[in-house]
Amino acid sequence: MDVDPIQRLILELGRLPGVGARSAARLAFYILKASQKDRATGRSLAHDLAQALMAAVESVGLCRRCGNLCAGELCAVCSDPRRDRSLLCVVEGIEDLRAIEASGGFRGLYHVLHGALSPLDGVGPGELRLDELAERVRAGGVTEVVLATSADVEGDTTALYVARLLKPTGVRVTRLASGIPLGGELEYVDQATLSRALAERRDF
Amino acid sequence: MDVDPIQRLILELGRLPGVGARSAARLAFYILKASQKDRATGRSLAHDLAQALMAAVESVGLCRRCGNLCAGELCAVCSDPRRDRSLLCVVEGIEDLRAIEASGGFRGLYHVLHGALSPLDGVGPGELRLDELAERVRAGGVTEVVLATSADVEGDTTALYVARLLKPTGVRVTRLASGIPLGGELEYVDQATLSRALAERRDF
Repeated sequence: MDVDPIQRLILELGRLPGVGARSAARLAFYILKASQKDRATGRSLAHDLAQALMAAVESVGLCRRCGNLCAGELCAVCSDPRRDRSLLCVVEGIEDLRAIEASGGFRGLYHVLHGALSPLDGVGPGELRLDELAERVRAGGVTEVVLATSADVEGDTTALYVARLLKPTGVRVTRLASGIPLGGELEYVDQATLSRALAERRDF
Repeated sequence: MDVDPIQRLILELGRLPGVGARSAARLAFYILKASQKDRATGRSLAHDLAQALMAAVESVGLCRRCGNLCAGELCAVCSDPRRDRSLLCVVEGIEDLRAIEASGGFRGLYHVLHGALSPLDGVGPGELRLDELAERVRAGGVTEVVLATSADVEGDTTALYVARLLKPTGVRVTRLASGIPLGGELEYVDQATLSRALAERRDF
């Protein structure tokens, strides 16, 4: 006999991040109840969601230029004529790209590495989109590469590697500033951040 | 032009209860990233979830006896020969049935009303599965009906209505006990509950 479809739906929903067994059951029963109500109209939340899922995985791939998720050949950022093509921001993942976009502080293009160097996890330079990055910079037009990898060991290692990789091209390479987060009270800032903020203090 | 499939997926996920715009975006990107990795195998989280959703809404309906959600004609409770068929527990919704099942304190059958009487919201006796309930009791075999509607105005009204409806059948009608929740400190129990617990105090 097949697995009970209600149990199967609960199991699949439970695979989503942040959705535990209880939340998955709650979501499943909400969806099933809604589908009972919508049976007459034929357009239920479950149908819409299932179709959106299939459409998304079928049509969404990686932007062939920057590695961002996109529905066509080029992502929304790469195909936007108003972006500054001389600025390139290197990020580890798509979440980082989204965070920077949400900040509204960057008007250039991106390059998503899809990971960070981590020898312990078996992630070497060959696993990241580093050749593509070097190629984009060598192709010309880029005047500055902003290294926006995370402020942890893997992110710092990756930033260092990328900086050395791009040295022969002569392009200006910068790194996101580290220091006290805005709104952060000194008392509650961790020691490593405070120490870094002191070391990188600026003229006022 | 069509809506961007990524935006559409975020919108559909945002229709789930407890999933705001930020969580929906986080879920969508998690699903899309996973589907990029699973592209080779062809069995992605998105495919599995979409299929589970479609299978569930296509095969899941209401148990024709008690109104519980089920994949066949009768739900798991109604088709379980070990359940006590002389006990009938009346609940407002499927969530309530699940909560009682999870408590493990009831071994009879259920009757789901799919709502509670609420004249202000336009829910009258005709909107609830009351005729089916009266019919089940009249058919015989039921010796006690436990009213497990909520302990609020709508639930109390519904319980009162059901009790009157079943009066001619002579069946024993009971109501869930109200009082201090287990583990509840008196200091933090609300006034209405405390007042009810006092009024319904028992010999010790």
